[in-house]
Amino acid sequence: MKVVRKTARIRSEKQRGVEIIDQLIKKLPSWASGRGEQGDILLSTRIRLARNLYGIPFPSTAGDEELQAVVEAVEKACQQSRVFDGAVYLYLQQTDEISRKVLVERRLISPMFAEAKHPGMVVIDTAENISIMVNEEDHLRIQSIQPGLGLKEAWRVISRVDDELSEHLSYAFSEQFGYLTACPTNTGTGMRASILIHLPALSILDEVEQIIRELAPSEIAVRGFYGEGTEVIGNIFQISNQLTLGRTETAIIDRLEVVANKFIEMEQEARERLLKKQRVDLEDRIYRSLGILRHARIMSSLELMNHLSMVRLGVDMGFIDGLTPEILNELMIFTQPAHMQKLDQRLEDSHQRDVVRAEMIRQKIH
Amino acid sequence: MKVVRKTARIRSEKQRGVEIIDQLIKKLPSWASGRGEQGDILLSTRIRLARNLYGIPFPSTAGDEELQAVVEAVEKACQQSRVFDGAVYLYLQQTDEISRKVLVERRLISPMFAEAKHPGMVVIDTAENISIMVNEEDHLRIQSIQPGLGLKEAWRVISRVDDELSEHLSYAFSEQFGYLTACPTNTGTGMRASILIHLPALSILDEVEQIIRELAPSEIAVRGFYGEGTEVIGNIFQISNQLTLGRTETAIIDRLEVVANKFIEMEQEARERLLKKQRVDLEDRIYRSLGILRHARIMSSLELMNHLSMVRLGVDMGFIDGLTPEILNELMIFTQPAHMQKLDQRLEDSHQRDVVRAEMIRQKIH
Repeated sequence: MKVVRKTARIRSEKQRGVEIIDQLIKKLPSWASGRGEQGDILLSTRIRLARNLYGIPFPSTAGDEELQAVVEAVEKACQQSRVFDGAVYLYLQQTDEISRKVLVERRLISPMFAEAKHPGMVVIDTAENISIMVNEEDHLRIQSIQPGLGLKEAWRVISRVDDELSEHLSYAFSEQFGYLTACPTNTGTGMRASILIHLPALSILDEVEQIIRELAPSEIAVRGFYGEGTEVIGNIFQISNQLTLGRTETAIIDRLEVVANKFIEMEQEARERLLKKQRVDLEDRIYRSLGILRHARIMSSLELMNHLSMVRLGVDMGFIDGLTPEILNELMIFTQPAHMQKLDQRLEDSHQRDVVRAEMIRQKIH
Repeated sequence: MKVVRKTARIRSEKQRGVEIIDQLIKKLPSWASGRGEQGDILLSTRIRLARNLYGIPFPSTAGDEELQAVVEAVEKACQQSRVFDGAVYLYLQQTDEISRKVLVERRLISPMFAEAKHPGMVVIDTAENISIMVNEEDHLRIQSIQPGLGLKEAWRVISRVDDELSEHLSYAFSEQFGYLTACPTNTGTGMRASILIHLPALSILDEVEQIIRELAPSEIAVRGFYGEGTEVIGNIFQISNQLTLGRTETAIIDRLEVVANKFIEMEQEARERLLKKQRVDLEDRIYRSLGILRHARIMSSLELMNHLSMVRLGVDMGFIDGLTPEILNELMIFTQPAHMQKLDQRLEDSHQRDVVRAEMIRQKIH
């Protein structure tokens, strides 16, 4: 009887997890609203804090019971925090593969965490501004995402969350090193701040690498859309601070803000240059992408991202009317493979997805 | 005084040549009407006769005075023929480079003839159904073009012209060999019949070569859009008979009609197969081409021909409404480089032409 009841409980939790994901995929996360400072170039800003509980080994060496205890402690702490009113709690072990992929696509968990077999959890607030991965590389990876250049707002929110949670959780902290983390590169503030920035003009002119080289490459890291170990697609770069030790949080944020503004300025300058020297070629690229999106019958995610980049540039520069960054973000997020597959299980086949994706695009932008 | 008058005469003839070309480029030749039997696959049919005047060397060895005499004899003969009522007479030496290129683009003269420095002439009837190159490889190359599969009509027209001209011209003819020609491959009937056929489905399936191999390759030759020595572009093939000696004209025509029908049948069958097995891929190709034509800001002739091929297929198969073969032929003919340059001398620059071409396309098919 006990076994049956336990199975039933897991099923009900699985059921709840499915419903949560079903709800999630219908709406845009608030960071994708297209609003926010410098929102035409800077898609979003993210800050994450790595935290670990005192006296429990890091996830890579901890046993399942210890990890389960971490999950329960974090859940309890969140439930006592006002920030997490109405938040959802997803238990990784009861979350199926497609749902995990949806979470990766929404940038709520890392691709690595999606593969985890041990007890883990994701906490997500209603607007998807704040989320926590429990038992990824560290016990807690708290993340705050804001639209546009929102480093200060992200920092305000995440430090409030960090303060509230620390009232109920005992963090591993050393007076000498700061917050202790699984990977030494995170030790200190345990903070990483990053921006997701759209650099089509610099990409066309092949100048991104050069700017990165000039901007103290030891300090910043450039990654792809889905974070560490992923490719840059659609000319969208994730740029983050590299140093965490021996720096204050505000110093890191200020430095990244300088870097972000530098990229924005260079991208704007590159757009001006394209407009001046290669206007027709630029228009040709932009309108061809628009034409292909409006007409294609088969469209892969990757091809879509490349055309969206050109169309976004066209919208930003005033060539294209009637399309907004929000519509483009909807296309970018809702047409991702797991999002589509979650909505319609028949779309397991990638060719079939490419056909339906092309249909979704035509409906949105015709 | 005499010299001045002669210069004035040449100028006035040049002037007249310019006007003729100016008139020519504004209208579609009647073979491009898009009507005609099997006109969805078979664009046009052409028959040409090679004739030489008795007692005058072939153009490659004749002197300028002899060639001038040929020009005058042919002009006089044409003026006595009803077929050439209202026809225009263009003297090659008074026709500038761009105008010669226009004639090549309209398939009224060969690329080789466009380079000629010796006395030569082109006679063109008002509908461009009948034309004569004087002093190309042979003294006369009489050509009759019809829309669609019009071998019998082309033959009816050209043999009437041939009969009428032969009343006023003395042809070089041997009882043993037939009509004597500069190149022995033309000796006999002096006739070559050809079709211009659009084979997009067979091209997609990469089956054109195989069909040619099966269809007695010694008998037929496959060439590009502008004839001998030119490339196949936009999946349009020129297919002609190879043998002229020891065959009657009607035997040649009947044989080419069999070949034409075979190609039409194979192309239709290939379209059916594509529709059955790769419908979405086919639609994707067709609509992408349409989308690019509707949106591009820069378009080369070659790229246009390839997209036109897909759009033509889409029109033929009923995927695309509101476009006709005639509109597509207008795009194909009026956007050729010399046609554009003739209309606007500033379009000497090929990049500038590509920009204006894209504009013309958008106006036509939006």
